[in-house]
Amino acid sequence: MAKKSKKPAVKKFAPKATKKPAAKKSAKPAGASKLAPKPVSSGKGATPAEIGAAVVAHLNSGAVSDTPLWDKFWSDAIESIEGSGMGWAGRKAMEAKCADFMGENEILGCRATGPFVGATGFAVHIEIELKPKGGDTVRMKEVAVYTVKNGKVVREEFMYAGC
Amino acid sequence: MAKKSKKPAVKKFAPKATKKPAAKKSAKPAGASKLAPKPVSSGKGATPAEIGAAVVAHLNSGAVSDTPLWDKFWSDAIESIEGSGMGWAGRKAMEAKCADFMGENEILGCRATGPFVGATGFAVHIEIELKPKGGDTVRMKEVAVYTVKNGKVVREEFMYAGC
Repeated sequence: MAKKSKKPAVKKFAPKATKKPAAKKSAKPAGASKLAPKPVSSGKGATPAEIGAAVVAHLNSGAVSDTPLWDKFWSDAIESIEGSGMGWAGRKAMEAKCADFMGENEILGCRATGPFVGATGFAVHIEIELKPKGGDTVRMKEVAVYTVKNGKVVREEFMYAGC
Repeated sequence: MAKKSKKPAVKKFAPKATKKPAAKKSAKPAGASKLAPKPVSSGKGATPAEIGAAVVAHLNSGAVSDTPLWDKFWSDAIESIEGSGMGWAGRKAMEAKCADFMGENEILGCRATGPFVGATGFAVHIEIELKPKGGDTVRMKEVAVYTVKNGKVVREEFMYAGC
């Protein structure tokens, strides 16, 4: 009771914090606000710059397994899209795609450059040398584009050079 | 009446074309379909490969104005996102951004590599040399990622190296 009585009676007439403040008058010409940019972000958690640096370091490390990277930064709902025009939905489907690829090809070398950091994700330039089973060595150049949401990679799209 | 009488009475019992055909039995193990990829596409019209080739040729041409390229391939609803974390919505806002940039900087050189072609868009590697007004010459490397929908670029995101 004592606490309550300390509150000034006038408070209930004060503007509520949830109310939108009246729009400020601006010297800008009419329509200018439509052309003004708005902040774009990947949300909370690890940033595109942080995840991008980890992906580039991983690709250049010669590590055989991608599982530690996926465990740390990939969403279970990852969408994985190849330049061939096919998309795999979810971590298990992405893992199956990779297992198929590794069964059909031997990776001889991989060099990643970047990351190139954007507001909603990052890109990595990848040069890869591989040998399909029973085939000749192939060198591929691609740009991998990763979309980040709240600290996790939710989408990866591989774009190929020389198409 | 004559036309109606020509229709065989049995037709009404035939399966309708809108009905889903019964699922075919498959030799694949249960759950395999969940892991299988599905086609992903940018829709009808000019392909990411075609638009990407036009963008790279334009950037390397030394052309002063981007307007012919935008008129041909950009959506009026283009979303333009910079690595700084800001996004411009719509053609007019994108044009205002570019006008501001060109007013603040002198472009000394530009070299585009690509396109790197994906299922839903394309990426271009850009090296640009510019001189801010009253500042020193700067060299920038970036990857520009373009999303294509039904023959038009609906989104462009510029991702910067060295962030």
